[in-house]
Amino acid sequence: MSTILKQPAQVVLIGAGKVASHLLLALLQAGQPVLGLWSRSRTSAEAATAAAPEVPVLSNLQELPPADIYVLALPDAAVPEVLAAARFPAGALVVHTAGALPLSVFMAYPNIRGGVLYPLQTFSPGRHIEWATVPLCLEAADAAGLATLRQLAHSLSQDVRELSSAQRLQLHMAAVWVSNFPNHLLGIGHALLGGAGLPWELLHPLIRETLDKALSQPPFTAQTGPALRHDAVTLARHEAALAEHPAWQALYRQLTASIQAVAATPLANNRADK
Amino acid sequence: MSTILKQPAQVVLIGAGKVASHLLLALLQAGQPVLGLWSRSRTSAEAATAAAPEVPVLSNLQELPPADIYVLALPDAAVPEVLAAARFPAGALVVHTAGALPLSVFMAYPNIRGGVLYPLQTFSPGRHIEWATVPLCLEAADAAGLATLRQLAHSLSQDVRELSSAQRLQLHMAAVWVSNFPNHLLGIGHALLGGAGLPWELLHPLIRETLDKALSQPPFTAQTGPALRHDAVTLARHEAALAEHPAWQALYRQLTASIQAVAATPLANNRADK
Repeated sequence: MSTILKQPAQVVLIGAGKVASHLLLALLQAGQPVLGLWSRSRTSAEAATAAAPEVPVLSNLQELPPADIYVLALPDAAVPEVLAAARFPAGALVVHTAGALPLSVFMAYPNIRGGVLYPLQTFSPGRHIEWATVPLCLEAADAAGLATLRQLAHSLSQDVRELSSAQRLQLHMAAVWVSNFPNHLLGIGHALLGGAGLPWELLHPLIRETLDKALSQPPFTAQTGPALRHDAVTLARHEAALAEHPAWQALYRQLTASIQAVAATPLANNRADK
Repeated sequence: MSTILKQPAQVVLIGAGKVASHLLLALLQAGQPVLGLWSRSRTSAEAATAAAPEVPVLSNLQELPPADIYVLALPDAAVPEVLAAARFPAGALVVHTAGALPLSVFMAYPNIRGGVLYPLQTFSPGRHIEWATVPLCLEAADAAGLATLRQLAHSLSQDVRELSSAQRLQLHMAAVWVSNFPNHLLGIGHALLGGAGLPWELLHPLIRETLDKALSQPPFTAQTGPALRHDAVTLARHEAALAEHPAWQALYRQLTASIQAVAATPLANNRADK
């Protein structure tokens, strides 16, 4: 089990959520055999394998087939539960896919070899993901495990990196700032625009240009708007226009203050890390 | 002066900032004659016309040449100052380009006809703007002024709309939510990632997919992440990882609370306004 694989890794998937469903199809497309998929909910397992009927639904965590890698594509809290409940072959390579869960989650299980395969992307049902460009962040408790993970990862993506648990947590947190939080603000803009009877498409060119700009220079140096200009008249007009949404009015003030605070630091002009 | 123009409108530009500089080149490219450009700073005026040396720099607000439209591409606060200081021909069509400034700013000047030409985009030096797709939001005090503005606007963009001052303010505020604020959050993500020694490019595929998703469905319905899942363990890990940035830690909590508050309302599932 400590030799580097010459053949495609044989995978068992644990989980049937968004990551598991996307990963299943990507693995099959990459020619990695998937020996089976287990989920606590048999209905979910059947839904996840509906597009891949050749993959059997596994019914018993105590009788998993031998495989090169067991991939736990599960919510963070479910990983320790499955580790406690499952019976893996001795020395099995078991990896999770979570950004914020340290490798040490495997430490209580000395009979398995732990690892991490964290795909840095947001997955939704029905949306196609270009796996070749998804950064895959790897970590493993031993060199052979890392080698097997590398081989698997390279079959999926051109962007494979080895990250420590601490780096992965920082990356996962940064991902919240650039994905979950901006999406929420886009949602507020969408709701406000709809409330004013204006079409969402009106803002699309602005949103695209904002993004293109932020990806081509350090975003703090691309900042514009009334907060940055300390344009008190416009800020007051906007706050007044938010009178019906007191929570968003408070958030508007906090974001404005944060923009002004950053502008008063060297960060606002720091192009060194571009 | 109240007839609809058959010829390209002759324009005088007041201002030499980002909007004025972009607008100048777009007008010339559209075949609209620009009779001159004035700015309080002669140096700025010369810089703005450097790429269009055929456009004279005007030196005196009291001696503006006759034109079909005078476009005030100025900071909001400068518009009333210029209106008070300039001498326009009687009945001149004078428009500003500001999102949050009502048409009523012209009411104190009965000898001119007021209007608005608000380009909904973020402008930066050196970045090319595809004007054909920039929404141009028009408003005018009289029908003839609106007709002239329309003709000018259609020469620049395929997306020309008539909006009231109240609608324009709502749009401008929504633009802050979808452009200035998300850019700030991208900047925080960029700074945190740099602080962890990780490259910004690592987040690019996630950022692009987040945006594509938010533009293809109501963003609130595309929300993901630990805040939405009430994943207390991950939220605590992220907050701990932000210990060195107390202001961002507080903002993290506020954005998390806002995501959770929206998720508890019908907005989170409202696809009716897609």
